Amino acid sequence: MELAFSAGDITTLVQPLSAKGATGAVIRGFAALRGAQAGELSFLGNAKYRAEVADSAASIVLLPPGYAGEPRPDQLFLFVENPSVALARVCARVEQMLWPRPVSGIHASAVIAPGAQVAPSATVGPLCVLEAGAVVGERAHLQAQVYVGRDAVVGDDCWLHPGVVIAAGCVLRERVRLHAGVVVGSDGFGYEFVAGRHEKVPQVGVVEIGPDVEIGANSTLDRARFSRTLVGEGTKIDNLVQIAHNVVIGRHCLICAQAGISGSTTVGDYVVLGGPAGRAGHLTIGQGCKVDGQTGVRTDLTPGSFVKGTPGLPYQLEQRINVLRPRLPGLFRRVDELEAELARLKKSSAA
Amino acid sequence: MELAFSAGDITTLVQPLSAKGATGAVIRGFAALRGAQAGELSFLGNAKYRAEVADSAASIVLLPPGYAGEPRPDQLFLFVENPSVALARVCARVEQMLWPRPVSGIHASAVIAPGAQVAPSATVGPLCVLEAGAVVGERAHLQAQVYVGRDAVVGDDCWLHPGVVIAAGCVLRERVRLHAGVVVGSDGFGYEFVAGRHEKVPQVGVVEIGPDVEIGANSTLDRARFSRTLVGEGTKIDNLVQIAHNVVIGRHCLICAQAGISGSTTVGDYVVLGGPAGRAGHLTIGQGCKVDGQTGVRTDLTPGSFVKGTPGLPYQLEQRINVLRPRLPGLFRRVDELEAELARLKKSSAA
Amino acid sequence: MELAFSAGDITTLVQPLSAKGATGAVIRGFAALRGAQAGELSFLGNAKYRAEVADSAASIVLLPPGYAGEPRPDQLFLFVENPSVALARVCARVEQMLWPRPVSGIHASAVIAPGAQVAPSATVGPLCVLEAGAVVGERAHLQAQVYVGRDAVVGDDCWLHPGVVIAAGCVLRERVRLHAGVVVGSDGFGYEFVAGRHEKVPQVGVVEIGPDVEIGANSTLDRARFSRTLVGEGTKIDNLVQIAHNVVIGRHCLICAQAGISGSTTVGDYVVLGGPAGRAGHLTIGQGCKVDGQTGVRTDLTPGSFVKGTPGLPYQLEQRINVLRPRLPGLFRRVDELEAELARLKKSSAA
Repeated sequence: MELAFSAGDITTLVQPLSAKGATGAVIRGFAALRGAQAGELSFLGNAKYRAEVADSAASIVLLPPGYAGEPRPDQLFLFVENPSVALARVCARVEQMLWPRPVSGIHASAVIAPGAQVAPSATVGPLCVLEAGAVVGERAHLQAQVYVGRDAVVGDDCWLHPGVVIAAGCVLRERVRLHAGVVVGSDGFGYEFVAGRHEKVPQVGVVEIGPDVEIGANSTLDRARFSRTLVGEGTKIDNLVQIAHNVVIGRHCLICAQAGISGSTTVGDYVVLGGPAGRAGHLTIGQGCKVDGQTGVRTDLTPGSFVKGTPGLPYQLEQRINVLRPRLPGLFRRVDELEAELARLKKSSAA
Repeated sequence: MELAFSAGDITTLVQPLSAKGATGAVIRGFAALRGAQAGELSFLGNAKYRAEVADSAASIVLLPPGYAGEPRPDQLFLFVENPSVALARVCARVEQMLWPRPVSGIHASAVIAPGAQVAPSATVGPLCVLEAGAVVGERAHLQAQVYVGRDAVVGDDCWLHPGVVIAAGCVLRERVRLHAGVVVGSDGFGYEFVAGRHEKVPQVGVVEIGPDVEIGANSTLDRARFSRTLVGEGTKIDNLVQIAHNVVIGRHCLICAQAGISGSTTVGDYVVLGGPAGRAGHLTIGQGCKVDGQTGVRTDLTPGSFVKGTPGLPYQLEQRINVLRPRLPGLFRRVDELEAELARLKKSSAA
Repeated sequence: MELAFSAGDITTLVQPLSAKGATGAVIRGFAALRGAQAGELSFLGNAKYRAEVADSAASIVLLPPGYAGEPRPDQLFLFVENPSVALARVCARVEQMLWPRPVSGIHASAVIAPGAQVAPSATVGPLCVLEAGAVVGERAHLQAQVYVGRDAVVGDDCWLHPGVVIAAGCVLRERVRLHAGVVVGSDGFGYEFVAGRHEKVPQVGVVEIGPDVEIGANSTLDRARFSRTLVGEGTKIDNLVQIAHNVVIGRHCLICAQAGISGSTTVGDYVVLGGPAGRAGHLTIGQGCKVDGQTGVRTDLTPGSFVKGTPGLPYQLEQRINVLRPRLPGLFRRVDELEAELARLKKSSAA
């Protein structure tokens, strides 16, 4: 894929508040400030890199309004409210080039059961399988080797990457994007212990995924024991995440890679769950909570909590404990010393 | 999938000890006590929800024998020894409707190498691949896009969900159920460091999975360096679990989501491993041990141990430490204060 | 797969420094010293098993030069510099039998878009998908159901197991081996929070994987926001590992199962990352660092560090703290006692 944006193309895309300097370079790539070459675009997305702008060889730099420096010769500064968002807008154009809108229709190698419905504007790629009763909405894109089970629904404008599995009865609303290897609707992990064996508790509910949800590669979402496992509108889930049966996740949450949410847990809107974090089941995590990476949550969290550690504690307290941890061996020695001192003192005062 | 059970249908399925009340409602779904509507069945599976029975609008409620309340009008109480097991029996019937027994035979799109054997009663779904020497047993069900490698064996009544991979030479015994994306027989992680490079130690053993094992979506089981990686009869493994090479897992264990078992570890019968838990290699975890979520096991565990924390400690001790952790900053202050006090006391007693 | 090596075959393969004894047995398998039977080969790879050699029934034993014992009747000792490496050499021969070089060519069921290029000596197995512009190098082996996206490159002698996904534009160099279900080039997890919603930051970079890299089953590697996510030559990655966008991993690292590396982290050469370990983003982990399993890394690590715990501390200090942890309840009691004693002492000295 060859990029070639003129200064004018970039200006049209980012709609800057103002500009300084000029460049005739053709933009062929993007790079961080420090490593950028002529012919590349860069940006100041994080104030801590401010000092690097002056030395950057990037032909175009996206900057926040307050930046005071001057561009080099053949360098263009574009001032925008949020350079990171502006760059995202340029990248969105690149993304269209990287992933051009596929031709609609069903690939000859796909296996479509009688009774499956595919909207005329949808694209069903090579070697996909659609079972009876499956429904694929308008402009939906099943890239390749995707499986859609019986009576499952793929909403309008969904994008399913290669190898995605949607099990029977599960529902994706509009604009859901699932990366390669995501499994929606595997059985929940439920057994009754009867006569020395684990007898399976059938899992006959479904998974329902709200509009504008994105889920990362090889993540797994279990179907409910009955009723539904739910992921709310606009929530974004990273790679290798496990969502257990009967979990209900609110809207606009961020769930980082390798996190796991145990069965029947309720997660409020706007919650952020850091990396690998274990959570006991049947919990309620209130709206706007932040759970730091590697935090074990064992109790309900009130809205707005920020917790860290195992078991999870308020963030400030956990930070304080983490500062003290390396001093624990010293604390033991100090208590040894105190005991010895006190014994001496008692002896001498008894004398 | 439309459910429609009469009160008589449910009574026949759960075989209650006794009943109270009556309902003419058609049962179209299941729900928790609190959220249930008329036309739904609910159950008291956990004593802590006992108070919710009286307010439940469920048309049928499965209850333990000791429950004393009275049903509402048009509500039926069915008393059973274990409401959870009784519900499982109803759900098993629903499961048969959700996943009807597939028609046996090999789908036209499947790719079957010469020399693979498929039992006449087995079902090999669309776009499956069977290599030479692969064997698929009676009534086995390869749902779709499943891969069975050279000389691998899929036992009678196994059920392999879409995208499952069984690598060359691996063996599944009877009634093994593998959810989507499970990989059986990837190479173990073994290298020798020679002349500044990691030289691969070939992994030429297999994986053998005992009867009645179930494994969750996207879990991975590595083939042995030589001989076999083993999973014992009746063991249940959740999603995204990693079983390393040469691990031997006993019978009737429960291994929760995102757990990992390091190479050459031996796990006894009836062991329960909680969520994300790291384990050093070459360990022995005794029969009936419980390892809490996020627990790091670094030493052998004697049978019946219940451990928690990193590194794992006896459960009661770890709980005690967890209660004390938030009080650590206070403890440091108390020791500061003791030292100051003692210094004052020494000074004054010296005076 | 039936093995049958004579003593002469094994001798030819391992090229021993010297030998003792003799056997006429045909070697049909490998086993640990303790469990080995006649007709099996064993080895002393770890000095702690030295005592087991004398009782081993293995027909051939690979031993380090210093081993002093005598073989049994019909038992052959082969002395080699490194028994583990010698065994690996025998297993490499077995591996060739287990995974014979496939016939080159494109399986009739594979779907090859116009404009994809496959080298004549490559093997593209059943039900693979190659998009336009995809390139597959000499002797590369795409086993089955592999997806190679637009303009992606699979280097010479690569081996992609079933279900591997290489997304558009990603590049594998020579001799890369990817186990089943690996995803290369899923989108990085990047959003800007705008007007109450997470707006996607397009991820338009690629993943580039160096020569001789091996990656375990179901691991995921995200494409860069722009530019490249990089894995250096000879690095080995285990199962279910997550590599986030813009991560740069050096050469000859070992990354154990279920580890995760957060966005924009730089990992030096020869780093070893233990099991499940969470790492905050934008870090630098210096050359030759070792990070123990379940360690949370929150700060840059200087070259050669060995860290452990959450947050990670120097290994020796963390080990010391772990010894003291079980004694924490006692420490609290000791401080209680000290305070009581001191109060008594003050009282009595005031009296």
